[in-house]
Amino acid sequence: MSKNQLSARPSFVRKVPEGDDRPRRVCSDCGFVDYENPRVVVGAVAAGEDRILLCRRAIDPRRGFWTLPAGFLELHESAAEGARREAWEEARAEIEIDQLLAVYSIPRISQIQLIFRARLVGPEFAAGPETLELDLFPWRDIPWQEIAFPSVHWALGHYEEVRDLTAFAPRANPPGETGDMFRR
Amino acid sequence: MSKNQLSARPSFVRKVPEGDDRPRRVCSDCGFVDYENPRVVVGAVAAGEDRILLCRRAIDPRRGFWTLPAGFLELHESAAEGARREAWEEARAEIEIDQLLAVYSIPRISQIQLIFRARLVGPEFAAGPETLELDLFPWRDIPWQEIAFPSVHWALGHYEEVRDLTAFAPRANPPGETGDMFRR
Repeated sequence: MSKNQLSARPSFVRKVPEGDDRPRRVCSDCGFVDYENPRVVVGAVAAGEDRILLCRRAIDPRRGFWTLPAGFLELHESAAEGARREAWEEARAEIEIDQLLAVYSIPRISQIQLIFRARLVGPEFAAGPETLELDLFPWRDIPWQEIAFPSVHWALGHYEEVRDLTAFAPRANPPGETGDMFRR
Repeated sequence: MSKNQLSARPSFVRKVPEGDDRPRRVCSDCGFVDYENPRVVVGAVAAGEDRILLCRRAIDPRRGFWTLPAGFLELHESAAEGARREAWEEARAEIEIDQLLAVYSIPRISQIQLIFRARLVGPEFAAGPETLELDLFPWRDIPWQEIAFPSVHWALGHYEEVRDLTAFAPRANPPGETGDMFRR
């Protein structure tokens, strides 16, 4: 068996490590415990002159659909730094974080999404490698039928709700909604 | 439970996996890529009759110091569910989440902390396995000299700030503070 074949399938079993209280993925070869943690997605509803920045996805899942600039928080990053980085990576846009708009929990895929309200600092933007095209949309022109994920819908609606507020409690999932695209 | 608690240390090297854009931990024995993500801590400032629940830690780090009921979010949990679970595990307390009090970023240890404002539902509580003792403290009696972590200080101060507010923007790290206990 080649090293590549090995790398495709390490010998993980599911068991409760000593001193723990629930099953974890443990490598039966070397004893490594692969603690699986929920992941943090950071992103922004970023607007300039009352128009909202949306990106059309160049990657799966939901290639071709519109989304907010957002992605996984990296190690040693604050939440706001991550949101600014994602706006740069996906839209070459410089944004200024205003405040936290929403905290969404998507338990099926173990994601916590931290979505900020932000301002576009300048008029420049351009598609990054994960983006097919991007544009600034006035509210009435948002492509509602081609939005990538439920939480993008939520964030846009919540942004509109707090548009004229300077201080507000961040929104959470709409009542009863889990963000699961495949069980609605 | 942390990734540092490896019972047997596998042979990890740091390199950029094919198709990735930054170095990751890769096992040189079996090729497994250990994607490291920031972790989410969920917790609550939970009060009953204007007294705040604090727990004295029975585990390292900071054994013997006082903290809020808080811990790592588990897979397939919402943030609020995680905060309720931690209050139960550490303090056998049933809490009702009010709203998000604060989002702290601790970049050195790659943590995002989501701290809620909460109410104690009943008068019952008891030390869980990670707690030496616990008590309800009026503001003036909080053991400020024996608080476990900077973010516990922040959360208590932020709780006091918003005590009489029904809607507020959640707090973030105090200006210039990173939560790093060892570089202050």
